[in-house]
Amino acid sequence: MTQPARYFEDFTVGQVIRHATPRTVTTGDQALYLALYGSRFALQSSNLFAQAIGYPRSPLDDMLVFNVVFGKTVPDISLNAVANLGYAGTRFVKAVFPGDTITAESEVIGLKETTSGQTGIVYANSRGFNQDGETVLEFIRWVMVKKRDEASPAPEPMVPELPPEVTPDLLGRAVLPLYMHGWEGTMSGSRRRWHNYEVGERMDHVDGMTVEEAEHMMATRLYQNPARVHFNQHAESTGRFGRRIVYGGHVISLARALSYNGLANAFHVSAINAGRHVAPLFAGGTVYAWSEVVDAAELPNRADIGALRLVTTATVDRPCDDFPGREGNDFAKGVILELDYWVLLPR
Amino acid sequence: MTQPARYFEDFTVGQVIRHATPRTVTTGDQALYLALYGSRFALQSSNLFAQAIGYPRSPLDDMLVFNVVFGKTVPDISLNAVANLGYAGTRFVKAVFPGDTITAESEVIGLKETTSGQTGIVYANSRGFNQDGETVLEFIRWVMVKKRDEASPAPEPMVPELPPEVTPDLLGRAVLPLYMHGWEGTMSGSRRRWHNYEVGERMDHVDGMTVEEAEHMMATRLYQNPARVHFNQHAESTGRFGRRIVYGGHVISLARALSYNGLANAFHVSAINAGRHVAPLFAGGTVYAWSEVVDAAELPNRADIGALRLVTTATVDRPCDDFPGREGNDFAKGVILELDYWVLLPR
Amino acid sequence: MTQPARYFEDFTVGQVIRHATPRTVTTGDQALYLALYGSRFALQSSNLFAQAIGYPRSPLDDMLVFNVVFGKTVPDISLNAVANLGYAGTRFVKAVFPGDTITAESEVIGLKETTSGQTGIVYANSRGFNQDGETVLEFIRWVMVKKRDEASPAPEPMVPELPPEVTPDLLGRAVLPLYMHGWEGTMSGSRRRWHNYEVGERMDHVDGMTVEEAEHMMATRLYQNPARVHFNQHAESTGRFGRRIVYGGHVISLARALSYNGLANAFHVSAINAGRHVAPLFAGGTVYAWSEVVDAAELPNRADIGALRLVTTATVDRPCDDFPGREGNDFAKGVILELDYWVLLPR
Repeated sequence: MTQPARYFEDFTVGQVIRHATPRTVTTGDQALYLALYGSRFALQSSNLFAQAIGYPRSPLDDMLVFNVVFGKTVPDISLNAVANLGYAGTRFVKAVFPGDTITAESEVIGLKETTSGQTGIVYANSRGFNQDGETVLEFIRWVMVKKRDEASPAPEPMVPELPPEVTPDLLGRAVLPLYMHGWEGTMSGSRRRWHNYEVGERMDHVDGMTVEEAEHMMATRLYQNPARVHFNQHAESTGRFGRRIVYGGHVISLARALSYNGLANAFHVSAINAGRHVAPLFAGGTVYAWSEVVDAAELPNRADIGALRLVTTATVDRPCDDFPGREGNDFAKGVILELDYWVLLPR
Repeated sequence: MTQPARYFEDFTVGQVIRHATPRTVTTGDQALYLALYGSRFALQSSNLFAQAIGYPRSPLDDMLVFNVVFGKTVPDISLNAVANLGYAGTRFVKAVFPGDTITAESEVIGLKETTSGQTGIVYANSRGFNQDGETVLEFIRWVMVKKRDEASPAPEPMVPELPPEVTPDLLGRAVLPLYMHGWEGTMSGSRRRWHNYEVGERMDHVDGMTVEEAEHMMATRLYQNPARVHFNQHAESTGRFGRRIVYGGHVISLARALSYNGLANAFHVSAINAGRHVAPLFAGGTVYAWSEVVDAAELPNRADIGALRLVTTATVDRPCDDFPGREGNDFAKGVILELDYWVLLPR
Repeated sequence: MTQPARYFEDFTVGQVIRHATPRTVTTGDQALYLALYGSRFALQSSNLFAQAIGYPRSPLDDMLVFNVVFGKTVPDISLNAVANLGYAGTRFVKAVFPGDTITAESEVIGLKETTSGQTGIVYANSRGFNQDGETVLEFIRWVMVKKRDEASPAPEPMVPELPPEVTPDLLGRAVLPLYMHGWEGTMSGSRRRWHNYEVGERMDHVDGMTVEEAEHMMATRLYQNPARVHFNQHAESTGRFGRRIVYGGHVISLARALSYNGLANAFHVSAINAGRHVAPLFAGGTVYAWSEVVDAAELPNRADIGALRLVTTATVDRPCDDFPGREGNDFAKGVILELDYWVLLPR
């Protein structure tokens, strides 16, 4: 009697699922995260840099926190998912430090059977907590999940209102007031602060990173994400693609690490408005990325930091010097990710 | 003058060999172990979960401890081994925590030249210790080792009596009395406790994990196990298999991690009665596993925990929904490991 | 506007460049270093061994420190390099421990345009510091860097005097006085101390280690070294070799780890006189190494330790039992590295 994955019939609106395997995160996770992505943001790399601006020590990379929380939701929400349809309203609301213990829970906020009758869409609001029960992260995602039995009656459809974006008044909660005289551009790798970016500016992040099977599997296991398509070549060899699929959060982490080149002072991902995995990534592919600044916002009562809204587009085997992105209702060849998010920079 | 590996002639019964390279284990090792196997047992993942049931913090995964101790014995015992013939009497007798320093020694307890006159069997009783000199682990293994010179006279044959199993009265030494009201099934991933399993029950662990060269080599180096067949493709390309062989302890760790699905509350491997590597594993293979409960035992004076004796069978490129295992004196196609061991669960 | 890499015209003699991304090193880095190289030196593996001889705890592996400092210099010095021409005067002057924060700076000490007019040689003296501003490491390297514009006038040529070797009076600064009665040869893996080696002695380190793409990329990212040729198969597939090139520091770390077999008590790399990457290494190659003792030196006022000058030669896909090395002005087939350095051993 092994662990059953939930089918569409197993979800009800209002249901709250506490997810298994609490996780104490450590400097070991930070080192592995570095080895997997090569991120060079100073705040996450150096306790001294962190302390100079008012942090007690280096927090974990935001996307490491996201991936750990996301991983916990997989066995309960998406092990029987046919597709991950989208994210909304992702907010990082409390910094996570080595030694913290992360738990997660999800509330089902919507259900809608699809017209085929074979699947349904589950909307879940997931939260990560630290050992004090404080929320560190929350996000909404919706996934298409198999029905156990096609003959099961459809539930009353309930589609929640999804926030099209996280508004600036909700940003920056994870960041204590900072001492910006302690921010050394030489150390962070850039002198460009918030006001040095313009809405409409596009940046090619230049570098490309080739992904190996061992790397994406180690990452996904580090997140304790057991989704089968990432690990089992024997099964996938007869599957849709014939190959293991790289976990989407790995792509996001790669894109964020690449974005250092151009956004070295974007020290914190504060919110993700929307994310779209345009195409799957497979090992052997080389990931490139570029970003466009689509908005800039002051934060209420914060003279120390400002927010930039970015759309970062990642591609595979295609450099981004010509900024490939949306083409009508479709995307340019090679695009695998479009991520719409808010980062914070020193003012 | 490089380090010589021992030949059969270099062993004498009663000889005690202290092994080189003491090792301080850390949260870094725990993070790597997670990244390599994706284990989701709550006790080893969360300090809070550990503390709620009476541990000071998360102990290291038992098989990480086993592999570290085993690795130390390799340069002295099995660098010239032709074959690892078996294990017996493996007992985990003290929990190991980050910050502990592990050392190891082996006593030669048996010797027997083989009929070919080219090799001999060495029986060794190996022990791992912590920084206080307390035994954390012991096991017997026997290996076939090359003779330096076929003309050397055979030693007096001495075959030790091998324990066919570890009896229940010897189990549980590594586990302090636990507060089982602190055990949250939601967090551990299962509500099934000791009494919910039946002797004869079979569980397919469902998931498959494909192994990459980079992964098994990183694991085996983490254990400081220098056995050459795992690392040197240049030499192995002209060897028996034409390929590097995955270290057997890596297979055991994979099988244990896969067994979470069905045995989420089996929080501790207390003893290994016997282990058999039925066939070698190579990179590219996908490992599956299933388990059968072959015995259940109460432990003396322990109302908190109970023991299940499991036989876990691992396969390569063959799902385990039909429970492939022994077929007469042989094994079903695809079987690579049969492990007979005791795990502990909360009552 | 992404981060610009410096061209030859951007360097001036006397210029001091502080490099970005300070880095707190941890036990996580130590665990990864072990997993990547399998080093077995006792001082770096065990806090107890370290404390028994007078260290507060295990220091980081010297080559891990070198690679972290080197990685920081890459974005400013060698991102536009055509070739890394050489190293000189590398000295490890202070032990680095988990929790230390490393920063780096480089002074340009020489410039010389090449006769082609397309490139120039930059000589830089780089230093790594700990959180107290103490130098932990320094080295000189010279690289051939592209000019932005061939028409740019050549700077006044300035070629610094390069130390042909680090003299013994400069060795051992990173090593506090040691309690050599605490040095257990059983634990370190060898009873051979400093006086047991002879000048002229050659050692085959025997073992071979095959390198995978995932491994060298994880290592190079751990060092936050963003040099593109190591990571981007899409770009390299049309480059000079058609493949990603393994970072030279990865080869040095491999050779040092292999040298344990023969040099188990060479607990510290104190200085590197010169290093030459004779040929590039690619994933799939198996690295072997051998060493020759070319000098031995007492250290001033140190009765506890002595120095051996080694030339370690690493090869790819070629065992070193016949000591392949220099052949006239060239090197034997398969040689990829010649490293001339000083190690310290207990007396």
